[in-house]
Amino acid sequence: MSKVFVIGHKSPDTDSIAAAVSYSYLKRQLGVDAVAARAGEPNKETKFALDYFKVEAPVLLESTARKNPDDEKTKLILVDHNESKQCVDGAKDAEVLELIDHHRLGDFETENPIFILIRPVGCVNTVIYGLYKANGVKPSKEVAGMMLSAIISDTVLFRSPTTTDEDKAAVKELAEIAGVDYEAYGMEMLKAGADISDYPAEKLAHNDTKEFEAGGKVFSCGQISVMDLEPIEAKRADIMKVLEETKAEKQYEASYLMVTNILTEDTYLWFTSGAEAAAEEAFGKKAEDRCVYLPKVMSRKKQVAPFLLKVYGK
Amino acid sequence: MSKVFVIGHKSPDTDSIAAAVSYSYLKRQLGVDAVAARAGEPNKETKFALDYFKVEAPVLLESTARKNPDDEKTKLILVDHNESKQCVDGAKDAEVLELIDHHRLGDFETENPIFILIRPVGCVNTVIYGLYKANGVKPSKEVAGMMLSAIISDTVLFRSPTTTDEDKAAVKELAEIAGVDYEAYGMEMLKAGADISDYPAEKLAHNDTKEFEAGGKVFSCGQISVMDLEPIEAKRADIMKVLEETKAEKQYEASYLMVTNILTEDTYLWFTSGAEAAAEEAFGKKAEDRCVYLPKVMSRKKQVAPFLLKVYGK
Repeated sequence: MSKVFVIGHKSPDTDSIAAAVSYSYLKRQLGVDAVAARAGEPNKETKFALDYFKVEAPVLLESTARKNPDDEKTKLILVDHNESKQCVDGAKDAEVLELIDHHRLGDFETENPIFILIRPVGCVNTVIYGLYKANGVKPSKEVAGMMLSAIISDTVLFRSPTTTDEDKAAVKELAEIAGVDYEAYGMEMLKAGADISDYPAEKLAHNDTKEFEAGGKVFSCGQISVMDLEPIEAKRADIMKVLEETKAEKQYEASYLMVTNILTEDTYLWFTSGAEAAAEEAFGKKAEDRCVYLPKVMSRKKQVAPFLLKVYGK
Repeated sequence: MSKVFVIGHKSPDTDSIAAAVSYSYLKRQLGVDAVAARAGEPNKETKFALDYFKVEAPVLLESTARKNPDDEKTKLILVDHNESKQCVDGAKDAEVLELIDHHRLGDFETENPIFILIRPVGCVNTVIYGLYKANGVKPSKEVAGMMLSAIISDTVLFRSPTTTDEDKAAVKELAEIAGVDYEAYGMEMLKAGADISDYPAEKLAHNDTKEFEAGGKVFSCGQISVMDLEPIEAKRADIMKVLEETKAEKQYEASYLMVTNILTEDTYLWFTSGAEAAAEEAFGKKAEDRCVYLPKVMSRKKQVAPFLLKVYGK
């Protein structure tokens, strides 16, 4: 069989990059010619993890669109996403062989039956670790390191309400294999990701941004994890300007940015002009200065996206 | 937790009924208050299996629509289907907790992440048997009997091209538990299902009918397995009349009926007026007298639906 690319979502986070690494590794152990791929640049946190465990970044796929209709379709395994808006460009022109995820099921459809496994756990690497066990395969030290990095990232070191006991157990087992103190390493990694000091407003405005569609309307929602609000507040005017420009350019209904403080475990949800009513309705909160304050909210998947989708889907 | 209904598709076949029985049994072993349910009358083949293994038919759910918006939502686990057109009435008003299937992924979406497992095997009971093993649970003799009945039904005793090695292995293991000679039992069960002698045209026209949607168009496709063409040919005029009436009433783009001979392993695909062009394009065959002959075709899922969906989806 020809090469299969394992790929996560656009604006990849640590989970998407690590899942490409870990699931392609598993598939290779099972005899599949699988290659880790990515649909964008790794962020600072991910780079920290890749450097720490000396793992090469997955190969960049710019697009999987075919030049000629006679060309063979690119074979993909999707990890950590299933909404078409979040797929690598040209994914509609590719052949999707498998889907492994931990998000809500979106608009993904297939022509034929394929292997699909979605589980409501904190991180897709927890799902993948389950598949390692089911297949009796042990990840290498490096791969285990990437997997635990992903689980720590997605669960914010077990602080996110999406965290399950299985996520915690997986991190503990993977830390044994990787030979790290996961708490010390995790804080270091999160700190690396939260360092926005040298990021321009463009980068911050688009950080870990995902597109969502409901009721024919498309909105975007990015997320930035910080350990201190001041540095990002200082850049707020510039970030909001970029958000407004992108919204206009991409004809979004609205653009949101979750500014999540991982120490105080709360989120300031920034949004573009005109989204006051939707944001207030979604969270039952008064908006102020294009922002809704959401205490105890850290998870886009569980605590933000479903409520916005419900409002826009009306 | 309140009661959860495990339910298959409308116009249930043996796989849908058996999956409701087998997956609810597994969930009960795992401590969930799960109840086997059905969205329609069991067919003759299924009744034969239920009688043979002395298993009660699942409870009938007419609709899961709520009377008042304040009423608690009915909790469902969907087995053997995922397209909204095939769900029990009012499914949009229910809370779907899990989805276990072996079909293409259709238009199903969820608000939150749930457990979804779809595997490209011949029968959803093969997927469910895998979950029994993963959980270290053994089905009862009766449940094993229903599971092997489903796999034999969906794979037409391993004749369908959808059959995988895992389906065969599952039947062999389940036959040990159920204490039956699966080949002799299987032929008897298929024969019971293929006996259409006392079926009125209405029943035959709607046998195991599923609705499909592509490009905003809805069409239906039923399937009847026979071991002899003569009895059904004798009723053809009446059956076609019912098909035309249902098509008009439900505003289908077209209605199809696969008349599949499980001994000669081929299908006569009957269709309503106006569908010649679509049927000819889908299968690259000349239609004659509102029928396309499809040698070596037995599987709606693999050999018929994808081609019709492609034509209507244009």
